[in-house]
Amino acid sequence: MRICDLEIIDLRFPTSLTADGTDAVHKDPDYSAAYVILHTDGDAEDTGHGFTFTIGRGNEVCTEALRAFRHLVVGRDVDEIASDQAAFWRSLACDSQLRWLGPEKGVVHISMAAIVNAVWDLQARRARKPVWKLLADMAPREIVRCIDFQYITDALTPDEAVEILERQLPSRRDREATLLRDGYPAYTTSVGWMGYSDAKIRQLSRQALADGFTCFKVKVGGDPADDERRVGMVRDAIGPSHKLMIDANQKWNVDEAIARVRAL
Amino acid sequence: MRICDLEIIDLRFPTSLTADGTDAVHKDPDYSAAYVILHTDGDAEDTGHGFTFTIGRGNEVCTEALRAFRHLVVGRDVDEIASDQAAFWRSLACDSQLRWLGPEKGVVHISMAAIVNAVWDLQARRARKPVWKLLADMAPREIVRCIDFQYITDALTPDEAVEILERQLPSRRDREATLLRDGYPAYTTSVGWMGYSDAKIRQLSRQALADGFTCFKVKVGGDPADDERRVGMVRDAIGPSHKLMIDANQKWNVDEAIARVRAL
Repeated sequence: MRICDLEIIDLRFPTSLTADGTDAVHKDPDYSAAYVILHTDGDAEDTGHGFTFTIGRGNEVCTEALRAFRHLVVGRDVDEIASDQAAFWRSLACDSQLRWLGPEKGVVHISMAAIVNAVWDLQARRARKPVWKLLADMAPREIVRCIDFQYITDALTPDEAVEILERQLPSRRDREATLLRDGYPAYTTSVGWMGYSDAKIRQLSRQALADGFTCFKVKVGGDPADDERRVGMVRDAIGPSHKLMIDANQKWNVDEAIARVRAL
Repeated sequence: MRICDLEIIDLRFPTSLTADGTDAVHKDPDYSAAYVILHTDGDAEDTGHGFTFTIGRGNEVCTEALRAFRHLVVGRDVDEIASDQAAFWRSLACDSQLRWLGPEKGVVHISMAAIVNAVWDLQARRARKPVWKLLADMAPREIVRCIDFQYITDALTPDEAVEILERQLPSRRDREATLLRDGYPAYTTSVGWMGYSDAKIRQLSRQALADGFTCFKVKVGGDPADDERRVGMVRDAIGPSHKLMIDANQKWNVDEAIARVRAL
Protein backbone atom coordinates (compact mmCIF):
# COMPACT_ATOMS: atom_id res chain seq x y z
CA MET A 1 0.00 0.00 0.00
CA ARG A 2 1.37 3.37 -1.01
CA ILE A 3 0.56 6.98 -0.10
CA CYS A 4 -0.78 8.44 -3.34
CA ASP A 5 -1.78 11.94 -2.21
CA LEU A 6 -1.15 14.43 0.58
CA GLU A 7 -4.29 16.56 0.84
CA ILE A 8 -3.85 19.86 2.70
CA ILE A 9 -6.72 21.91 4.14
CA ASP A 10 -6.46 25.42 5.62
CA LEU A 11 -9.16 25.08 8.29
CA ARG A 12 -10.20 28.03 10.47
CA PHE A 13 -12.86 28.67 13.12
CA PRO A 14 -13.80 32.22 14.24
CA THR A 15 -13.39 31.46 17.95
CA SER A 16 -12.27 35.02 18.68
CA LEU A 17 -15.92 36.08 18.31
CA THR A 18 -16.74 34.30 21.59
CA ALA A 19 -13.34 34.90 23.29
CA ASP A 20 -12.70 31.14 23.49
CA GLY A 21 -9.02 30.40 24.00
CA THR A 22 -8.11 33.97 24.99
CA ASP A 23 -5.24 34.64 27.38
CA ALA A 24 -2.92 37.48 28.37
CA VAL A 25 -1.02 37.48 25.07
CA HIS A 26 -3.38 35.71 22.64
CA LYS A 27 -6.28 38.13 22.79
CA ASP A 28 -8.20 37.06 19.69
CA PRO A 29 -7.34 33.47 18.72
CA ASP A 30 -9.20 31.92 15.78
CA TYR A 31 -8.59 28.24 16.46
CA SER A 32 -7.29 26.81 13.20
CA ALA A 33 -5.52 23.82 11.74
CA ALA A 34 -3.18 23.04 8.88
CA TYR A 35 -4.99 19.75 8.27
CA VAL A 36 -3.52 16.80 6.39
CA ILE A 37 -5.19 13.76 4.84
CA LEU A 38 -2.95 10.98 3.54
CA HIS A 39 -4.69 9.10 0.75
CA THR A 40 -3.50 5.61 -0.19
CA ASP A 41 -4.04 3.19 -3.04
CA GLY A 42 -5.65 0.81 -0.50
CA ASP A 43 -9.29 0.63 0.60
CA ALA A 44 -11.35 3.83 0.96
CA GLU A 45 -10.96 3.75 4.77
CA ASP A 46 -7.17 3.46 4.52
CA THR A 47 -6.51 7.17 4.97
CA GLY A 48 -4.65 9.04 7.69
CA HIS A 49 -5.69 12.35 9.24
CA GLY A 50 -3.40 14.69 11.14
CA PHE A 51 -3.15 18.40 11.82
CA THR A 52 -1.13 21.08 13.43
CA PHE A 53 -2.90 23.64 15.55
CA THR A 54 -2.56 27.39 15.01
CA ILE A 55 -4.61 30.36 16.17
CA GLY A 56 -5.40 31.95 12.81
CA ARG A 57 -3.03 34.21 10.91
CA GLY A 58 -0.07 32.17 9.73
CA ASN A 59 -2.06 28.98 9.25
CA GLU A 60 -1.26 29.48 5.56
CA VAL A 61 2.48 29.47 6.40
CA CYS A 62 2.02 25.95 7.80
CA THR A 63 0.05 24.76 4.75
CA GLU A 64 2.90 26.11 2.57
CA ALA A 65 5.38 24.14 4.71
CA LEU A 66 3.23 21.02 4.28
CA ARG A 67 3.38 21.44 0.49
CA ALA A 68 7.17 21.60 0.78
CA PHE A 69 7.17 18.11 2.37
CA ARG A 70 4.98 16.52 -0.33
CA HIS A 71 7.90 15.03 -2.29
CA LEU A 72 9.04 13.15 0.83
CA VAL A 73 5.62 11.61 1.50
CA VAL A 74 3.73 10.87 -1.73
CA GLY A 75 4.79 7.52 -3.19
CA ARG A 76 6.07 6.12 0.11
CA ASP A 77 5.18 2.53 1.07
CA VAL A 78 3.01 2.48 4.21
CA ASP A 79 4.44 -0.75 5.65
CA GLU A 80 7.97 0.47 5.08
CA ILE A 81 7.22 3.68 7.00
CA ALA A 82 5.58 1.70 9.82
CA SER A 83 8.58 -0.64 10.10
CA ASP A 84 10.93 2.26 10.90
CA GLN A 85 9.08 5.39 11.99
CA ALA A 86 12.24 7.03 13.30
CA ALA A 87 13.70 6.81 9.79
CA PHE A 88 10.53 8.41 8.39
CA TRP A 89 10.80 11.29 10.88
CA ARG A 90 14.45 11.68 9.98
CA SER A 91 13.65 11.71 6.25
CA LEU A 92 11.40 14.74 6.86
CA ALA A 93 13.66 16.50 9.39
CA CYS A 94 16.80 15.92 7.33
CA ASP A 95 15.73 16.93 3.84
CA SER A 96 19.02 18.47 2.77
CA GLN A 97 17.47 21.87 1.92
CA LEU A 98 14.31 22.13 4.08
CA ARG A 99 16.27 21.31 7.25
CA TRP A 100 17.80 24.80 7.10
CA LEU A 101 14.41 26.24 8.17
CA GLY A 102 14.37 24.44 11.49
CA PRO A 103 14.10 21.55 11.26
CA GLU A 104 12.93 20.77 14.75
CA LYS A 105 11.51 24.15 15.71
CA GLY A 106 8.71 26.51 14.70
CA VAL A 107 6.68 26.20 11.50
CA VAL A 108 8.65 23.30 10.01
CA HIS A 109 8.50 21.30 13.23
CA ILE A 110 4.76 21.65 13.80
CA SER A 111 4.06 20.96 10.12
CA MET A 112 6.14 17.77 10.20
CA ALA A 113 4.13 16.76 13.26
CA ALA A 114 0.86 17.01 11.27
CA ILE A 115 2.24 14.50 8.74
CA VAL A 116 3.66 12.14 11.35
CA ASN A 117 0.37 12.24 13.29
CA ALA A 118 -1.46 11.34 10.07
CA VAL A 119 0.85 8.35 9.65
CA TRP A 120 -0.04 7.19 13.20
CA ASP A 121 -3.73 7.64 12.40
CA LEU A 122 -3.36 5.64 9.18
CA GLN A 123 -1.69 2.77 11.03
CA ALA A 124 -4.32 2.76 13.75
CA ARG A 125 -7.14 2.70 11.18
CA ARG A 126 -5.52 -0.22 9.36
CA ALA A 127 -5.19 -2.08 12.66
CA ARG A 128 -8.82 -1.17 13.53
CA LYS A 129 -7.65 0.28 16.86
CA PRO A 130 -7.48 3.74 18.38
CA VAL A 131 -3.95 5.18 18.37
CA TRP A 132 -3.52 4.76 22.16
CA LYS A 133 -4.29 1.06 21.83
CA LEU A 134 -1.94 0.64 18.87
CA LEU A 135 0.83 2.14 20.99
CA ALA A 136 -0.10 0.20 24.13
CA ASP A 137 0.07 -3.09 22.19
CA MET A 138 3.53 -2.46 20.76
CA ALA A 139 6.52 -4.45 22.01
CA PRO A 140 9.17 -2.34 23.79
CA ARG A 141 11.54 -2.61 20.85
CA GLU A 142 8.79 -1.51 18.42
CA ILE A 143 8.12 1.60 20.50
CA VAL A 144 11.80 2.46 20.66
CA ARG A 145 12.07 2.06 16.89
CA CYS A 146 9.64 5.00 16.52
CA ILE A 147 12.06 7.41 18.19
CA ASP A 148 14.93 9.28 16.54
CA PHE A 149 17.81 8.92 18.99
CA GLN A 150 20.25 10.91 16.85
CA TYR A 151 20.98 13.67 19.37
CA ILE A 152 20.13 11.93 22.66
CA THR A 153 22.32 8.82 22.73
CA ASP A 154 24.68 10.42 25.26
CA ALA A 155 21.72 10.69 27.67
CA LEU A 156 19.73 7.59 26.63
CA THR A 157 20.53 4.82 24.15
CA PRO A 158 17.90 2.69 22.38
CA ASP A 159 18.96 -0.35 24.45
CA GLU A 160 18.56 1.57 27.71
CA ALA A 161 15.10 2.72 26.58
CA VAL A 162 14.08 -0.86 25.74
CA GLU A 163 15.27 -1.97 29.18
CA ILE A 164 13.09 0.66 30.91
CA LEU A 165 10.03 -0.45 28.94
CA GLU A 166 10.72 -4.16 29.49
CA ARG A 167 11.02 -3.61 33.22
CA GLN A 168 7.48 -2.17 33.21
CA LEU A 169 6.07 -4.77 30.81
CA PRO A 170 4.72 -7.26 33.39
CA SER A 171 2.34 -4.64 34.84
CA ARG A 172 1.16 -3.31 31.48
CA ARG A 173 -2.16 -5.19 31.27
CA ASP A 174 -3.07 -4.19 34.84
CA ARG A 175 -2.32 -0.54 34.13
CA GLU A 176 -4.38 -0.69 30.94
CA ALA A 177 -7.32 -2.16 32.89
CA THR A 178 -7.01 0.61 35.49
CA LEU A 179 -7.11 3.28 32.81
CA LEU A 180 -10.12 1.71 31.10
CA ARG A 181 -11.93 1.50 34.45
CA ASP A 182 -10.95 4.85 36.04
CA GLY A 183 -9.93 7.01 33.08
CA TYR A 184 -6.80 9.15 32.83
CA PRO A 185 -6.53 12.26 35.04
CA ALA A 186 -7.00 15.48 33.09
CA TYR A 187 -7.41 19.15 33.93
CA THR A 188 -9.75 21.63 32.31
CA THR A 189 -8.45 24.87 30.90
CA SER A 190 -11.84 26.00 29.59
CA VAL A 191 -13.27 27.58 32.73
CA GLY A 192 -11.11 30.68 32.81
CA TRP A 193 -10.26 32.10 29.39
CA MET A 194 -9.14 35.70 29.70
CA GLY A 195 -12.00 37.21 27.70
CA TYR A 196 -14.82 35.44 29.56
CA SER A 197 -17.23 37.38 31.78
CA ASP A 198 -17.27 36.75 35.53
CA ALA A 199 -20.70 35.14 35.23
CA LYS A 200 -19.46 32.73 32.53
CA ILE A 201 -16.38 31.77 34.57
CA ARG A 202 -18.54 31.03 37.63
CA GLN A 203 -20.99 28.97 35.60
CA LEU A 204 -18.26 27.00 33.77
CA SER A 205 -16.37 26.32 37.02
CA ARG A 206 -19.49 24.86 38.63
CA GLN A 207 -20.22 22.81 35.52
CA ALA A 208 -16.68 21.39 35.32
CA LEU A 209 -16.83 20.50 39.03
CA ALA A 210 -20.12 18.70 38.43
CA ASP A 211 -18.54 16.87 35.45
CA GLY A 212 -15.90 15.44 37.80
CA PHE A 213 -12.87 17.58 37.11
CA THR A 214 -10.48 18.02 40.05
CA CYS A 215 -7.95 20.40 38.43
CA PHE A 216 -8.88 23.78 36.94
CA LYS A 217 -6.71 26.25 35.00
CA VAL A 218 -7.30 30.01 34.89
CA LYS A 219 -5.58 32.51 32.60
CA VAL A 220 -3.79 35.35 34.41
CA GLY A 221 -1.45 38.16 33.35
CA GLY A 222 -4.09 40.87 33.01
CA ASP A 223 -4.74 43.75 35.38
CA PRO A 224 -3.67 42.58 38.88
CA ALA A 225 -7.08 43.30 40.45
CA ASP A 226 -8.84 41.42 37.64
CA ASP A 227 -6.52 38.44 38.04
CA GLU A 228 -7.18 38.31 41.79
CA ARG A 229 -10.94 38.54 41.35
CA ARG A 230 -11.08 35.86 38.63
CA VAL A 231 -8.80 33.42 40.44
CA GLY A 232 -10.77 34.01 43.66
CA MET A 233 -14.06 33.29 41.90
CA VAL A 234 -12.80 29.95 40.61
CA ARG A 235 -11.46 29.03 44.05
CA ASP A 236 -14.85 29.86 45.56
CA ALA A 237 -16.63 27.74 42.97
CA ILE A 238 -14.39 24.65 43.24
CA GLY A 239 -13.81 24.70 47.00
CA PRO A 240 -10.57 24.53 48.98
CA SER A 241 -9.38 20.98 48.17
CA HIS A 242 -9.20 20.85 44.37
CA LYS A 243 -6.18 21.99 42.41
CA LEU A 244 -6.23 25.50 40.94
CA MET A 245 -3.65 26.26 38.22
CA ILE A 246 -2.68 29.58 36.64
CA ASP A 247 -1.10 30.39 33.27
CA ALA A 248 0.26 33.84 32.32
CA ASN A 249 1.35 32.66 28.83
CA GLN A 250 4.81 34.33 28.87
CA LYS A 251 3.35 37.75 29.74
CA TRP A 252 5.62 38.37 32.73
CA ASN A 253 9.37 38.69 33.11
CA VAL A 254 11.01 36.96 36.09
CA ASP A 255 10.57 39.73 38.67
CA GLU A 256 6.95 40.33 37.68
CA ALA A 257 6.19 36.61 37.79
CA ILE A 258 7.54 36.28 41.34
CA ALA A 259 5.70 39.38 42.60
CA ARG A 260 2.39 38.61 40.89
CA VAL A 261 2.29 34.95 41.91
CA ARG A 262 3.10 35.91 45.54
CA ALA A 263 0.20 38.36 45.49
CA LEU A 264 -2.17 35.76 44.06
CA MET B 1 7.82 59.24 5.83
CA ARG B 2 5.76 56.05 5.72
CA ILE B 3 6.38 52.52 4.48
CA CYS B 4 3.95 52.15 1.57
CA ASP B 5 4.86 48.68 0.27
CA LEU B 6 6.61 45.49 1.36
CA GLU B 7 7.98 43.88 -1.80
CA ILE B 8 8.87 40.20 -1.47
CA ILE B 9 11.16 38.32 -3.87
CA ASP B 10 11.78 34.55 -3.92
CA LEU B 11 15.42 34.63 -5.05
CA ARG B 12 17.35 31.43 -5.79
CA PHE B 13 20.79 30.54 -7.16
CA PRO B 14 21.66 27.01 -8.39
CA THR B 15 24.83 26.74 -6.29
CA SER B 16 24.39 22.98 -5.90
CA LEU B 17 25.62 22.63 -9.50
CA THR B 18 29.12 23.63 -8.38
CA ALA B 19 28.94 22.10 -4.84
CA ASP B 20 29.38 25.53 -3.24
CA GLY B 21 28.22 25.54 0.36
CA THR B 22 28.09 21.75 0.66
CA ASP B 23 28.74 20.05 4.00
CA ALA B 24 28.07 16.72 5.72
CA VAL B 25 24.30 17.27 5.97
CA HIS B 26 23.57 19.94 3.35
CA LYS B 27 24.67 18.05 0.27
CA ASP B 28 23.04 20.15 -2.44
CA PRO B 29 22.36 23.70 -1.20
CA ASP B 30 20.92 26.20 -3.66
CA TYR B 31 21.78 29.46 -1.92
CA SER B 32 18.56 31.45 -1.80
CA ALA B 33 16.92 34.38 -0.11
CA ALA B 34 13.47 35.49 0.90
CA TYR B 35 14.28 39.06 -0.09
CA VAL B 36 12.41 42.13 1.15
CA ILE B 37 12.31 45.69 -0.19
CA LEU B 38 10.56 48.31 1.92
CA HIS B 39 9.23 51.11 -0.29
CA THR B 40 8.38 54.48 1.24
CA ASP B 41 6.54 57.60 0.19
CA GLY B 42 9.87 59.46 0.47
CA ASP B 43 12.56 59.92 -2.18
CA ALA B 44 13.35 57.12 -4.64
CA GLU B 45 16.49 56.16 -2.67
CA ASP B 46 14.54 55.90 0.61
CA THR B 47 14.05 52.15 0.41
CA GLY B 48 15.27 49.39 2.69
CA HIS B 49 16.59 45.99 1.60
CA GLY B 50 16.82 42.91 3.78
CA PHE B 51 16.70 39.17 3.36
CA THR B 52 16.74 35.88 5.13
CA PHE B 53 19.04 33.18 3.83
CA THR B 54 17.82 29.69 2.94
CA ILE B 55 19.34 26.88 0.90
CA GLY B 56 16.54 26.35 -1.60
CA ARG B 57 13.43 24.28 -0.95
CA GLY B 58 11.34 26.08 1.66
CA ASN B 59 12.34 29.55 0.53
CA GLU B 60 8.67 29.89 -0.46
CA VAL B 61 7.66 29.10 3.15
CA CYS B 62 9.64 32.17 4.24
CA THR B 63 8.10 34.39 1.54
CA GLU B 64 4.66 33.20 2.76
CA ALA B 65 5.67 34.17 6.32
CA LEU B 66 6.78 37.58 5.07
CA ARG B 67 3.35 38.12 3.49
CA ALA B 68 1.81 37.31 6.88
CA PHE B 69 3.72 40.24 8.42
CA ARG B 70 2.65 42.77 5.78
CA HIS B 71 -0.21 44.24 7.88
CA LEU B 72 2.27 45.07 10.66
CA VAL B 73 4.70 46.90 8.36
CA VAL B 74 2.88 48.72 5.55
CA GLY B 75 1.63 52.13 6.69
CA ARG B 76 4.12 52.42 9.57
CA ASP B 77 5.93 55.75 10.11
CA VAL B 78 9.68 55.34 9.56
CA ASP B 79 10.77 57.83 12.25
CA GLU B 80 8.44 56.26 14.77
CA ILE B 81 9.96 52.83 14.08
CA ALA B 82 13.48 54.27 14.36
CA SER B 83 12.69 55.95 17.67
CA ASP B 84 11.84 52.63 19.33
CA GLN B 85 13.17 49.65 17.38
CA ALA B 86 12.58 47.26 20.26
CA ALA B 87 8.88 48.12 20.12
CA PHE B 88 8.89 47.44 16.36
CA TRP B 89 10.49 44.02 16.91
CA ARG B 90 7.93 43.29 19.60
CA SER B 91 5.07 44.35 17.33
CA LEU B 92 6.19 41.64 14.86
CA ALA B 93 7.06 38.98 17.45
CA CYS B 94 3.89 39.56 19.46
CA ASP B 95 1.20 39.65 16.79
CA SER B 96 -1.51 37.95 18.81
CA GLN B 97 -2.06 35.17 16.24
CA LEU B 98 1.25 34.86 14.35
CA ARG B 99 3.23 34.53 17.58
CA TRP B 100 1.83 31.01 17.96
CA LEU B 101 4.15 29.88 15.11
CA GLY B 102 7.32 30.74 16.94
CA PRO B 103 7.70 33.61 17.32
CA GLU B 104 11.42 33.65 17.99
CA LYS B 105 12.38 30.41 16.29
CA GLY B 106 12.45 28.86 12.83
CA VAL B 107 10.65 30.27 9.79
CA VAL B 108 8.88 33.10 11.61
CA HIS B 109 12.06 34.22 13.36
CA ILE B 110 14.26 34.34 10.25
CA SER B 111 11.48 36.03 8.25
CA MET B 112 11.07 38.73 10.92
CA ALA B 113 14.82 39.24 10.71
CA ALA B 114 14.59 40.01 6.97
CA ILE B 115 12.12 42.82 7.73
CA VAL B 116 14.10 44.20 10.66
CA ASN B 117 17.31 44.14 8.60
CA ALA B 118 15.49 46.09 5.87
CA VAL B 119 14.52 48.69 8.48
CA TRP B 120 18.20 49.04 9.48
CA ASP B 121 19.15 49.39 5.82
CA LEU B 122 16.49 52.06 5.30
CA GLN B 123 17.77 54.06 8.26
CA ALA B 124 21.37 53.81 7.12
CA ARG B 125 20.46 54.96 3.59
CA ARG B 126 18.56 57.94 4.98
CA ALA B 127 21.57 58.83 7.13
CA ARG B 128 23.89 58.31 4.12
CA LYS B 129 26.01 55.90 6.17
CA PRO B 130 26.72 52.17 6.08
CA VAL B 131 24.84 50.25 8.80
CA TRP B 132 27.99 49.62 10.86
CA LYS B 133 28.66 53.35 11.00
CA LEU B 134 25.04 54.16 11.90
CA LEU B 135 25.36 51.75 14.82
CA ALA B 136 28.82 52.96 15.82
CA ASP B 137 27.58 56.55 15.98
CA MET B 138 24.62 55.79 18.24
CA ALA B 139 24.62 56.90 21.86
CA PRO B 140 24.62 54.03 24.39
CA ARG B 141 20.98 54.66 25.28
CA GLU B 142 19.99 54.66 21.59
CA ILE B 143 21.64 51.27 21.08
CA VAL B 144 19.92 49.83 24.13
CA ARG B 145 16.56 51.13 22.89
CA CYS B 146 16.92 48.80 19.87
CA ILE B 147 16.87 45.69 22.07
CA ASP B 148 13.80 43.88 23.38
CA PHE B 149 14.64 43.15 27.03
CA GLN B 150 11.33 41.40 27.73
CA TYR B 151 12.77 38.02 28.73
CA ILE B 152 16.28 39.00 29.84
CA THR B 153 15.80 41.62 32.55
CA ASP B 154 16.64 39.09 35.29
CA ALA B 155 20.09 38.69 33.64
CA LEU B 156 20.59 42.21 32.29
CA THR B 157 18.49 45.35 32.61
CA PRO B 158 18.51 48.25 30.11
CA ASP B 159 20.30 50.46 32.68
CA GLU B 160 23.01 47.85 33.21
CA ALA B 161 23.46 47.59 29.43
CA VAL B 162 23.78 51.39 29.12
CA GLU B 163 26.39 51.34 31.88
CA ILE B 164 28.51 48.74 30.04
CA LEU B 165 28.39 50.78 26.83
CA GLU B 166 29.13 54.07 28.60
CA ARG B 167 32.14 52.55 30.31
CA GLN B 168 33.54 51.73 26.84
CA LEU B 169 32.53 55.05 25.28
CA PRO B 170 35.81 56.98 25.82
CA SER B 171 37.76 54.46 23.69
CA ARG B 172 35.16 54.24 20.92
CA ARG B 173 36.83 56.58 18.42
CA ASP B 174 40.22 54.88 18.88
CA ARG B 175 38.66 51.46 18.32
CA GLU B 176 36.90 52.72 15.21
CA ALA B 177 40.19 54.09 13.86
CA THR B 178 41.88 50.73 14.53
CA LEU B 179 39.16 48.87 12.64
CA LEU B 180 39.34 51.27 9.70
CA ARG B 181 43.13 50.90 9.58
CA ASP B 182 43.54 47.15 10.27
CA GLY B 183 40.14 45.70 9.36
CA TYR B 184 38.15 43.23 11.43
CA PRO B 185 39.48 39.67 11.80
CA ALA B 186 37.49 37.15 9.76
CA TYR B 187 37.85 33.52 8.82
CA THR B 188 37.15 31.93 5.45
CA THR B 189 34.80 28.99 5.17
CA SER B 190 35.07 28.78 1.39
CA VAL B 191 38.24 26.70 1.05
CA GLY B 192 36.82 23.37 2.21
CA TRP B 193 33.23 22.78 1.13
CA MET B 194 32.41 19.08 1.32
CA GLY B 195 31.78 18.57 -2.38
CA TYR B 196 34.99 20.23 -3.62
CA SER B 197 37.75 18.21 -5.27
CA ASP B 198 41.12 17.87 -3.56
CA ALA B 199 42.72 20.03 -6.27
CA LYS B 200 40.18 22.79 -5.71
CA ILE B 201 40.65 22.73 -1.93
CA ARG B 202 44.42 22.99 -2.33
CA GLN B 203 44.14 25.86 -4.80
CA LEU B 204 41.58 27.79 -2.69
CA SER B 205 43.63 27.32 0.50
CA ARG B 206 46.70 28.79 -1.15
CA GLN B 207 44.65 31.65 -2.61
CA ALA B 208 43.04 32.50 0.77
CA LEU B 209 46.46 32.44 2.43
CA ALA B 210 47.77 34.84 -0.24
CA ASP B 211 44.70 37.06 0.37
CA GLY B 212 45.75 37.45 4.00
CA PHE B 213 43.40 35.07 5.82
CA THR B 214 44.77 33.55 9.02
CA CYS B 215 41.83 31.28 9.93
CA PHE B 216 40.43 28.57 7.63
CA LYS B 217 37.36 26.37 8.06
CA VAL B 218 36.96 22.90 6.56
CA LYS B 219 33.79 20.82 6.45
CA VAL B 220 34.09 17.38 8.05
CA GLY B 221 31.62 14.61 8.92
CA GLY B 222 32.17 12.50 5.80
CA ASP B 223 34.08 9.25 5.51
CA PRO B 224 36.83 9.35 8.21
CA ALA B 225 39.68 8.77 5.73
CA ASP B 226 38.33 11.57 3.46
CA ASP B 227 38.05 13.95 6.43
CA GLU B 228 41.64 13.23 7.47
CA ARG B 229 42.99 13.70 3.94
CA ARG B 230 41.10 16.97 3.36
CA VAL B 231 41.97 18.49 6.73
CA GLY B 232 45.60 17.43 6.24
CA MET B 233 45.73 19.06 2.81
CA VAL B 234 44.53 22.38 4.21
CA ARG B 235 47.06 22.19 7.06
CA ASP B 236 49.81 21.54 4.53
CA ALA B 237 48.68 24.51 2.43
CA ILE B 238 48.36 27.03 5.28
CA GLY B 239 51.38 25.95 7.34
CA PRO B 240 51.63 25.11 11.04
CA SER B 241 50.89 28.51 12.64
CA HIS B 242 47.52 29.57 11.23
CA LYS B 243 44.22 28.50 12.74
CA LEU B 244 42.44 25.52 11.18
CA MET B 245 38.76 25.07 12.09
CA ILE B 246 36.38 22.16 11.42
CA ASP B 247 32.60 21.99 11.16
CA ALA B 248 30.60 18.74 11.08
CA ASN B 249 27.25 20.55 10.85
CA GLN B 250 25.40 18.42 13.45
CA LYS B 251 26.31 15.18 11.68
CA TRP B 252 27.75 13.47 14.76
CA ASN B 253 26.29 12.48 18.11
CA VAL B 254 28.39 13.12 21.23
CA ASP B 255 30.41 9.89 21.24
CA GLU B 256 31.13 10.15 17.52
CA ALA B 257 32.17 13.79 17.85
CA ILE B 258 34.68 12.99 20.60
CA ALA B 259 36.16 10.01 18.74
CA ARG B 260 36.33 11.69 15.34
CA VAL B 261 37.84 14.93 16.62
CA ARG B 262 40.45 12.98 18.61
CA ALA B 263 41.38 11.09 15.45
CA LEU B 264 41.66 14.31 13.44
